[in-house]
Amino acid sequence: MDTVIIKKDELEAVFYKKLVKHGLGPEQAGSIASVFALNAADGILTHSVYRFERQVEQLDSGLAKPGTMPLKVAGFGGLERYDALFGLGITSAIFSMKRACELASENGIGAVALRNANHWMRAGYYALMASEKGYVGVCWTNTMANLCAWQSKEPVIGNNPVAMAMPSEKGCAMLVDSAMSQFSVGKTMQYAMESRLLPVPGGWDEKGELTCDAQAIVNTRRFLPAGYWKGSGFSMILDAMASFLSDGNTTSQIKGVNPLVETGLSQVFIAIDPRTIGSDGAQGIIDSIAKSVEPDCRIPGGQLYQKREKALKEGIEFSRKTWNDILAL
Amino acid sequence: MDTVIIKKDELEAVFYKKLVKHGLGPEQAGSIASVFALNAADGILTHSVYRFERQVEQLDSGLAKPGTMPLKVAGFGGLERYDALFGLGITSAIFSMKRACELASENGIGAVALRNANHWMRAGYYALMASEKGYVGVCWTNTMANLCAWQSKEPVIGNNPVAMAMPSEKGCAMLVDSAMSQFSVGKTMQYAMESRLLPVPGGWDEKGELTCDAQAIVNTRRFLPAGYWKGSGFSMILDAMASFLSDGNTTSQIKGVNPLVETGLSQVFIAIDPRTIGSDGAQGIIDSIAKSVEPDCRIPGGQLYQKREKALKEGIEFSRKTWNDILAL
Repeated sequence: MDTVIIKKDELEAVFYKKLVKHGLGPEQAGSIASVFALNAADGILTHSVYRFERQVEQLDSGLAKPGTMPLKVAGFGGLERYDALFGLGITSAIFSMKRACELASENGIGAVALRNANHWMRAGYYALMASEKGYVGVCWTNTMANLCAWQSKEPVIGNNPVAMAMPSEKGCAMLVDSAMSQFSVGKTMQYAMESRLLPVPGGWDEKGELTCDAQAIVNTRRFLPAGYWKGSGFSMILDAMASFLSDGNTTSQIKGVNPLVETGLSQVFIAIDPRTIGSDGAQGIIDSIAKSVEPDCRIPGGQLYQKREKALKEGIEFSRKTWNDILAL
Repeated sequence: MDTVIIKKDELEAVFYKKLVKHGLGPEQAGSIASVFALNAADGILTHSVYRFERQVEQLDSGLAKPGTMPLKVAGFGGLERYDALFGLGITSAIFSMKRACELASENGIGAVALRNANHWMRAGYYALMASEKGYVGVCWTNTMANLCAWQSKEPVIGNNPVAMAMPSEKGCAMLVDSAMSQFSVGKTMQYAMESRLLPVPGGWDEKGELTCDAQAIVNTRRFLPAGYWKGSGFSMILDAMASFLSDGNTTSQIKGVNPLVETGLSQVFIAIDPRTIGSDGAQGIIDSIAKSVEPDCRIPGGQLYQKREKALKEGIEFSRKTWNDILAL
């Protein structure tokens, strides 16, 4: 693949310019550009450079509404419900996790349920937002039907990504950011684009056989739930909880097989403030878990800040075609 | 396998008698017997008849302390921390979920973190407890190291079961009760005992190959995380959160490879009271999800109450040897 290496600051400046050109005010454009650029620096290209064009298309089509902030529709103690009113997904998710953190500081634990949201791009961004301020952060979203339920022949449930993060100082993260599919749609498309085989089966091919062939899965749209019936079950209950608590759509009510029109999502943001019960800093616990496993074992999010630092120094490598497409927007 | 069919009431009466004989007061014995019997009626034999002997052994050995209730050690708003003081796992878990529900009614959302707990048997029992009273219920526990981390050759992380339940009236449940392993230890032992192959690989054999041979996995103790690196990552962060919030042990601090001495666990119980924000009854949402998938697809917990009713009428079938062992305790 023909690639470019772009510095994070340059990426952010281009994102900003394009977002303003397509209708965002300077403050919101700055915020969205900064999230897209940080996601790229963290290596989550699928939810950054490879999705930016779609974000702009959503703006152009009027599906994502510039300047719109979530509206509170109900609340009691540490629990609040908002309507995102089809504002930009990143904006309403940042708002909601901030609010969950405020609720946690006031109540020990806080939760915001959000309906009518747009795609928030990278789930982990919002859990990290909380964790970098000293909170335990948890969030999830439902999605359009993009995953086979266990024993289903069609994509009828969402892959409903979940993110969970431990309070961290920079350099010490524990972050899980995971769709309920074995591979996210974005990751599978990236493998297909790079003509690589998935390391383990990620879905079914035309013949109904489990396969590692990413392109075959992109073609059938028959993605495998992580852990077979387990990911399928978690997907359903995460969908049920998000739509119930937000009084919003379930996956089956979200229209379209075209991701461009994936809108009206239901999301949940939970924060816990451990300082309210006298705990601060989870470094010791994260270290002890890291020490208890063999050195080769992957600690989720363990290399996040090292990778970010490297990307900030050296720039971010991705497809030249994508970069040209972004510049042309 | 030579089996017996025992009525739930008879089972409960025998459990009660044995628990009193081994040192429990009448009230606590009644409560524990009722949980063991209901778990059996719900088909969770691995965490009922097949574990009852171990519960008695824990009492006899002094590892689980009769009459001991959790002690509050910190609290703020909707968040509280307790020390279970090595009381019986079922007793401290019931206490904690009840308390989380009270906190949810007062604060919208409530959480109890519990340390020094004993095995609670079936995670789903406590989530259902909350859901049957109209709450969204979520709970998880860490365990001794009984699961390979991704890329690990040894069991170094816990399978850390999680349960999540939607508010339900009887007959309308959505319940996920799932270890982070592809199969729970109990389920794998049941397959091994019945000389059946697992439907998908559940761990590694002596040669380091993924296998469906349950006995081979019981021998190597190399259980596979559900979704490979995904279950591994979730296991680690659930362990980190439970031990951090409870100020209790991580999996690596829980001693022993003998499940009898699996004690000093860390657990989290979260309840959300949807009535505080004007929502009641999730029947419509559960139905809409069930309708959106093909009829053969498994809705987690979907058949729970039908199965329970059948078991209450017809009795519970399990190994005659186990029944004789229980009668001999």
